[in-house]
Amino acid sequence: MSKKAMVYIQSGGPTSVINTSLYGAIREAQKHNDKISHIYGSLHGIEGLVDDNLIDLDQEDFEEIELLKQTPGAALGSTRYKLPKDYHNPVYNKIIANIRKHDIGYVFVNGGNDSMDTCYKLSVLCQRMGLDVKVIGIPKTVDNDLAETDHSLGFPSAAKYVANTVKEICIDARVYRKGKVFIIEVMGRNAGWLTAAVDLIDGPNRPDFIYLPEHTFDVEKFLDEVSVKFHEKGNAIAVISEGIIFERDISTARVDSFGHIQLGGAALDLARMIEARFDLPTRAIELSLPQRAYGALVSKVDQDEAIAVGKMAVELAMEGKTALMVAIKRVSDDPYKSELVPVDISKIANVERIVPESMIKDNTQMDDSFRKYCLPLIQGEINVIYENGIIKSANLKKIKVQ
Amino acid sequence: MSKKAMVYIQSGGPTSVINTSLYGAIREAQKHNDKISHIYGSLHGIEGLVDDNLIDLDQEDFEEIELLKQTPGAALGSTRYKLPKDYHNPVYNKIIANIRKHDIGYVFVNGGNDSMDTCYKLSVLCQRMGLDVKVIGIPKTVDNDLAETDHSLGFPSAAKYVANTVKEICIDARVYRKGKVFIIEVMGRNAGWLTAAVDLIDGPNRPDFIYLPEHTFDVEKFLDEVSVKFHEKGNAIAVISEGIIFERDISTARVDSFGHIQLGGAALDLARMIEARFDLPTRAIELSLPQRAYGALVSKVDQDEAIAVGKMAVELAMEGKTALMVAIKRVSDDPYKSELVPVDISKIANVERIVPESMIKDNTQMDDSFRKYCLPLIQGEINVIYENGIIKSANLKKIKVQ
Repeated sequence: MSKKAMVYIQSGGPTSVINTSLYGAIREAQKHNDKISHIYGSLHGIEGLVDDNLIDLDQEDFEEIELLKQTPGAALGSTRYKLPKDYHNPVYNKIIANIRKHDIGYVFVNGGNDSMDTCYKLSVLCQRMGLDVKVIGIPKTVDNDLAETDHSLGFPSAAKYVANTVKEICIDARVYRKGKVFIIEVMGRNAGWLTAAVDLIDGPNRPDFIYLPEHTFDVEKFLDEVSVKFHEKGNAIAVISEGIIFERDISTARVDSFGHIQLGGAALDLARMIEARFDLPTRAIELSLPQRAYGALVSKVDQDEAIAVGKMAVELAMEGKTALMVAIKRVSDDPYKSELVPVDISKIANVERIVPESMIKDNTQMDDSFRKYCLPLIQGEINVIYENGIIKSANLKKIKVQ
Repeated sequence: MSKKAMVYIQSGGPTSVINTSLYGAIREAQKHNDKISHIYGSLHGIEGLVDDNLIDLDQEDFEEIELLKQTPGAALGSTRYKLPKDYHNPVYNKIIANIRKHDIGYVFVNGGNDSMDTCYKLSVLCQRMGLDVKVIGIPKTVDNDLAETDHSLGFPSAAKYVANTVKEICIDARVYRKGKVFIIEVMGRNAGWLTAAVDLIDGPNRPDFIYLPEHTFDVEKFLDEVSVKFHEKGNAIAVISEGIIFERDISTARVDSFGHIQLGGAALDLARMIEARFDLPTRAIELSLPQRAYGALVSKVDQDEAIAVGKMAVELAMEGKTALMVAIKRVSDDPYKSELVPVDISKIANVERIVPESMIKDNTQMDDSFRKYCLPLIQGEINVIYENGIIKSANLKKIKVQ
């Protein structure tokens, strides 16, 4: 059997452990030099395979590959580009040409819903064209909305970051006798998994309210609730998903130079509505980019699974499997145990898994079943390597494949 | 000599190590039970001493006091209240009554500029009234703007957080081929120390621009610079101090329900000006509260010094000293060594120390002298105790002193 090159693709939003899976896949691939001729990375997701922008990961230093384990972001660059539905689109000709040019036999796509769509389309394309290319998906998204897997890589670390950071904001926010209405905005357009993670905070440092996008957001009720809480306690802390939908109050919106109404993030808009309505002091806090890719608060469970999933993806390809995603199946909650299982990629692409109704109690807490689900995932701390007080991260040479 | 009670006051904005100094002071005070009758905490800064709102720290569990070492925020609560200039103000009568009622002989004030003013006024008051009360200040502010000390407690940890977090934002922000103009807002009204800390990031993950409040902010030049950088690299990352002063563009401001123009934070306003002017995609990121009180990224230097300064404050009081603040004097840069020295409190109250001109190079980097100053401060990581994946923090019983 002839050797073939492998290409690794990172896609969608970064996470704390997207490079950790890459690390796992590279280390496994290095064991299979009887089947794998070269280990390539595609720059900026699928764009690299379309535009012939591949880098040679075999030429990277051992230590830099080790550092991938603790480097947030996407070391190969990422993309939001989605492959067209029409397989006659010239984009596919380019992909096929590059697969042939570099004699590629294995493609790994690490990403979320859209990326699993890319994975699916690549597998269909190769099959139709009679190309012997094994295509395997590696699940990743802090939104945790991928189907057919207990959770997605990156979510546990993001949940750990969100729970810890919101706890510390609550501690800080409550030091003054006369406080403010704090509105903390967490990532999650349609799925509230990450917002719900604040429910893992115990004791007096919990936020007062939790609003997920799974429930209709009643803005009038919200305004009442936070103002009552403020007058009762001297402050109020609400955590909202970025995706909650409500009618923005135009009178508190800004107008751009063309006269168009422009709105802020959900937290900022709500803060302004509270100011306008009640004249209370407010502070909107967006957890922003750090929540999805923070190096100092990675969950050990997440790191271990990210390595294992990357490794298993390569193993599956070596066994000649294709059109699969490596899913995580929970075996037990306490002690937490999981196993990795291959799932047909067509079942996952473009499907979105939201928080089930049974896990939501009310707008101040989650049902116990959520805690049982989520708490095991944020367990364990990793050993982080610092250099001069700053977390060390991989800097790849990125030598282009000719 | 009769025993007297001690009162500990936390004041101003929280830091990661404000409770660490409290820990150091309590542990030292416990050794002096020949002189100290009770260890009290004043709730919400000086307000507790005015309103007779003291708690008995002797009744707290050993383990909770230990946890103060790693608990951000202000465990005793804080205040922004400033004592009046006129010593005839009835507030002072209340303070004197409570000092007498509880037989207080030692007062410790942990805070920044305003708090050192409180400390100064208390010492003058006690002297005028012939009360034998030793008043000692403990420096604390993430702004690092206290005079007569090499740095303030809390700044090293905040600087470590800001450098690490901005590095991770830069990694994340640069994963796409077509990016955005990112504007990251860091605390610092008049002093840019914390913003300057991003200069400690080495290599490719540095931001493109650094704007401190010490220099006049030329908004037109800024808009040009970031747009040129965006077109050159596909993204641009600027870090600004919250205190930079510029004329806000009213056309991108919001109007509240009373028709008043209201402005966002500096980063948001600049982002909107960039959108309006160039129609470029932007993202404003405020590092917000976590930057001043984060538990997972505390500097070991800061933690060690916070304990030592709390301890020395008690030692000075035991020696009968008063009207002093414990300052940090640097002995050497490499290896970093410091010693603690008492400084006359009148020299510190209300004085603000900004970043000296010699430490600023241009708007892309700091002078090497800044790095030499700041890098030793962020060194060393602390052992953090987690419980169920969340950083454990002290929960005090706060039993009120009758």
